[in-house]
Amino acid sequence: MKARFEKQIDELSRDVVIRLGQIDKSLMVAESCTAGLLGHSIARTPGASKIFWGGLIVYSNSAKQILAGVDPEIIQGSGAVSEETVDALLHGLLQRFPIDAALAVSGIAGPGGGTPEKPVGTVYIGSICRWLDEKKYIQRCRFEGERVEIQAQAVIEGMKQLLTML
Amino acid sequence: MKARFEKQIDELSRDVVIRLGQIDKSLMVAESCTAGLLGHSIARTPGASKIFWGGLIVYSNSAKQILAGVDPEIIQGSGAVSEETVDALLHGLLQRFPIDAALAVSGIAGPGGGTPEKPVGTVYIGSICRWLDEKKYIQRCRFEGERVEIQAQAVIEGMKQLLTML
Repeated sequence: MKARFEKQIDELSRDVVIRLGQIDKSLMVAESCTAGLLGHSIARTPGASKIFWGGLIVYSNSAKQILAGVDPEIIQGSGAVSEETVDALLHGLLQRFPIDAALAVSGIAGPGGGTPEKPVGTVYIGSICRWLDEKKYIQRCRFEGERVEIQAQAVIEGMKQLLTML
Repeated sequence: MKARFEKQIDELSRDVVIRLGQIDKSLMVAESCTAGLLGHSIARTPGASKIFWGGLIVYSNSAKQILAGVDPEIIQGSGAVSEETVDALLHGLLQRFPIDAALAVSGIAGPGGGTPEKPVGTVYIGSICRWLDEKKYIQRCRFEGERVEIQAQAVIEGMKQLLTML
């Protein structure tokens, strides 16, 4: 991965760990296209065990349904890469697990899988906070670059979004 | 991460994706100390979606219990970093999810958390195959280096172990 992405990820991870640690809140992640990079980035940070509860790598559609309780009709209707699926992931996590905040990512990291409506680089990112009346934010992003670069930018944007929410 | 680890991880991931693809079997991972690096490494490989079902980042003890069904008494008695916990993770995955093979990792990546019996770098790695009569292998490893280097070596050893099993 490009060094500049790694540096930015490390800095943002540190901010997330510090910020959530200050308010004593726990975080869970659900990752599709990043497939563990988000969780690994957070866990790589000193002090992460104080705030990081764990995560789901919901790579297949079956995993989205079984692990996070996403309704198959949502995936069939709106697609696995959609605002609706990320919304369902966020609420699935809050409903099923003893966590305070959740961050979810679903996108098309490429090289294949793009469509005219959702080209490669399209990533939906969402976060939710239980203690702020389930305050929630979901955004659609479009990143450029190779697979790993798209994944890295999704991680960066996800952490930024969460920090803005807090 | 050191370039030599990255290259080795990429090569082993490719072997795992090819080998499981040839026999049409699916893989799930459960990661504690690697926290997503294993899943991300596999998903980074072209063709991964054919074999990679998804994963659990069982970072906290609560996540090990709730996500993978590990008995709290096992964690209390043997520790989160133990053969017993990895064994429980493997069987939890096979029992709960529609997958053919599972790979689980639990260790002490440091810098803190080491004890005389289980110093930093101690990692338990296990794999299991449903279609081979639940054939299973669990090994205790001891890796040297910094946190990320220990995590990378755990991923490498895990993939090697799985490939040996197949």
